[in-house]
Amino acid sequence: MRKTDDDQNTVPAGSRRRFLQGALAGGVLASGGASSALAQKRVAPEGGNPKNLPPNVPGWSQVLGDGVAAHPYGKPSKFEKHVIRRDVEWLTASRESSVNFTPLHELDGIITPNGLCFERHHAGAAEINPADHRLMVHGLVDKPLLFTMDDLKRFPRTNRVYFLECAANSGMEWRGAQLNGCQFTHGMVHNVMYTGVLLKHILAEAGLKPNAKWLQIEGADSAAMNRSLPIEKALEDTMVAFKMNGEALRTEQGYPLRLVVPGWEGNLWVKWLRRIEVGDQPWLAREETSKYTDLMGDGRSRRYTFFMDAKSIVTNPSPEAPLKFKGRNVLSGLAWSGRGKVTRVDVSLDGGRNWSEARLDGLVLDRSVTRFYVDFDWQGAELMIQSRAHDSSGYVQPTKDELRKVRGVNSIYHNNGIQTWLVRSNGETENVEIS
Amino acid sequence: MRKTDDDQNTVPAGSRRRFLQGALAGGVLASGGASSALAQKRVAPEGGNPKNLPPNVPGWSQVLGDGVAAHPYGKPSKFEKHVIRRDVEWLTASRESSVNFTPLHELDGIITPNGLCFERHHAGAAEINPADHRLMVHGLVDKPLLFTMDDLKRFPRTNRVYFLECAANSGMEWRGAQLNGCQFTHGMVHNVMYTGVLLKHILAEAGLKPNAKWLQIEGADSAAMNRSLPIEKALEDTMVAFKMNGEALRTEQGYPLRLVVPGWEGNLWVKWLRRIEVGDQPWLAREETSKYTDLMGDGRSRRYTFFMDAKSIVTNPSPEAPLKFKGRNVLSGLAWSGRGKVTRVDVSLDGGRNWSEARLDGLVLDRSVTRFYVDFDWQGAELMIQSRAHDSSGYVQPTKDELRKVRGVNSIYHNNGIQTWLVRSNGETENVEIS
Repeated sequence: MRKTDDDQNTVPAGSRRRFLQGALAGGVLASGGASSALAQKRVAPEGGNPKNLPPNVPGWSQVLGDGVAAHPYGKPSKFEKHVIRRDVEWLTASRESSVNFTPLHELDGIITPNGLCFERHHAGAAEINPADHRLMVHGLVDKPLLFTMDDLKRFPRTNRVYFLECAANSGMEWRGAQLNGCQFTHGMVHNVMYTGVLLKHILAEAGLKPNAKWLQIEGADSAAMNRSLPIEKALEDTMVAFKMNGEALRTEQGYPLRLVVPGWEGNLWVKWLRRIEVGDQPWLAREETSKYTDLMGDGRSRRYTFFMDAKSIVTNPSPEAPLKFKGRNVLSGLAWSGRGKVTRVDVSLDGGRNWSEARLDGLVLDRSVTRFYVDFDWQGAELMIQSRAHDSSGYVQPTKDELRKVRGVNSIYHNNGIQTWLVRSNGETENVEIS
Repeated sequence: MRKTDDDQNTVPAGSRRRFLQGALAGGVLASGGASSALAQKRVAPEGGNPKNLPPNVPGWSQVLGDGVAAHPYGKPSKFEKHVIRRDVEWLTASRESSVNFTPLHELDGIITPNGLCFERHHAGAAEINPADHRLMVHGLVDKPLLFTMDDLKRFPRTNRVYFLECAANSGMEWRGAQLNGCQFTHGMVHNVMYTGVLLKHILAEAGLKPNAKWLQIEGADSAAMNRSLPIEKALEDTMVAFKMNGEALRTEQGYPLRLVVPGWEGNLWVKWLRRIEVGDQPWLAREETSKYTDLMGDGRSRRYTFFMDAKSIVTNPSPEAPLKFKGRNVLSGLAWSGRGKVTRVDVSLDGGRNWSEARLDGLVLDRSVTRFYVDFDWQGAELMIQSRAHDSSGYVQPTKDELRKVRGVNSIYHNNGIQTWLVRSNGETENVEIS
């Protein structure tokens, strides 16, 4: 394995790539080897009149496809039906207070398409008519305010790409390898471009009293999901967002309005946002006392552990995406940090004994996921694949055991330990624990 | 109108924003004005037990919403059904060789969601089984090659955000204001993050002969759509892409494989890519002789005018998105250039007499659309809104008349002239021509 970069010109001679050794004759591919039978079956003739096709031209080159009025709002190809959010039925008592997972192993780049962003609901996805929706701001303010959606769209707007990670992402891994597949171990994270208004503009309009220290943020779902947010974060970079990846928020992501709390745990990003109450202390809401606290080894709990620390995951290969070929392969993964930018990702193929630096590709943004790659040669040896993120605060992603030494194994939340995939010599990959 | 920035703290007292002047009493909002009736109807009580709701709480706060298994691949809210691609039936003889348009006035930020990316087909959208798809590379190469999709995914990958604009975008405007609405005048542009392989890696594997100067790029649709591409561009930054915005290409965008030709006209970005032939001269294909040439005023044609020059459009207000409120408003738009980054956008409210600089917000990337805003106060005066993009090559977007002086009015393609929207005193907006 070695570091690569964008300018690399050497490329692999793949074991299953088919070389055409024959000549191009008579407008139809003629070739000699066994592997060329399939090639000949599917390849159209060289240029010229498309009506002069041999009978082995694929059907899609012989018929008109759907016209431009067929799908006013597009959807994925029928050949991509397996690329979906998935839930784990036994994980929760009901599907309305539950979670599903983003298929990280099927994605690339850093944008999560809206249809695949994981969901976490406490009372199902509220379906709100935006014309009737209101946001109330009250409490320790000079002037209580009520906003329509139109009102909010008249404030100066901001666009930012941020990751959203559920605090419980990888939560099953505290007690060792459990769920098999990165969709389930790490799929409670997504990354989109939000459009909205900085909360500081809205609070400035209401006018904060001198003793304003905390906000209560409340959703319009029937759980009335609420959390307490420190005023410093509210005034720094918190957004009230109405669009994701260019279009309106999806219903399950809080349509028509959600809070965006960059770098902090997903539970704070209140969806279907209807109310912001300004107070002088936290509310000790259910979701920050009974839940979303970190139960330590000695039985005490940490509260208000907001930051999502640096984390990374190799998405390919992974249990749902085993190695299929010997020879050159692309290892791919995601890294992120709630404290800033990802500055480096190390990858090990031998369970953490040796590390090399991965190539960060595309946009490397503050509190966004970052894509990394390692182009490597595989000849069938067993691998123990790990990745380790570094961030701009100087923090380095810990091992699971390092985390357990401090936190014990009672926790559910904030598990950012290094993940291990065992790749067997046949390419099959599974979630394992190293200690 | 004045320039604004992210740090602006002053925000508007909107004419339709409702101020709650009453006290918060008994856990239920009590307020005095006429405008508060709606507020009271819709606002839930202050915190506490969600079962203790007054009867005026909206339905969505009283019932469980859809659970996490309801929509494995998500879709927009039912309240967003109007946000769709639209075609113009009379524009073309059939829907299979036609175009539809991105609803730019409904979007924000810079990412176009995949379901709303405009389509342009020459024989409809080919529906290809990726397991049977092949890419052939042949002609003036040392070694003709045939690639499966799996083969291509073993090359080093690249992720980039690029705009794709049809050369015919705004083509109807050559002879004056025609179609009413930015979806139709400017909606043949979209902007996504692509994941794929730099074409130079694939050509290096095949080995270029010394006289390799041009490529023929061919699609697997039944039009066998083909174009000639200079070898310099192929080796510079052209990509073979299999993902857009993280997931597989959509069928109508070339699934499973398309060419990405940054900054150049969309017709070159061949979809359903099946064949690359290396030659020593351009092919003079139908799509670069009969079509996609620029017919000048004197009857001669320009061929191979690849670059999409700097352009911009105010998306809000616009004919489909009139001004609804007096007082503070957000003017929003998009700018892009095929020659580099957008460095500045000017906006005029008086038909080009006075200009002020718009605020560029979010990511400003090479050959990507850039979002711009002007936060302005409107008291009902008639406006003539224009925008003017500057790019990193020093180029400034011209007026339509400046273009016509050089190009005449016979052209269809490459109209990047400044657009004018007339806003009437009632807020209604229409496409007009200034000369």
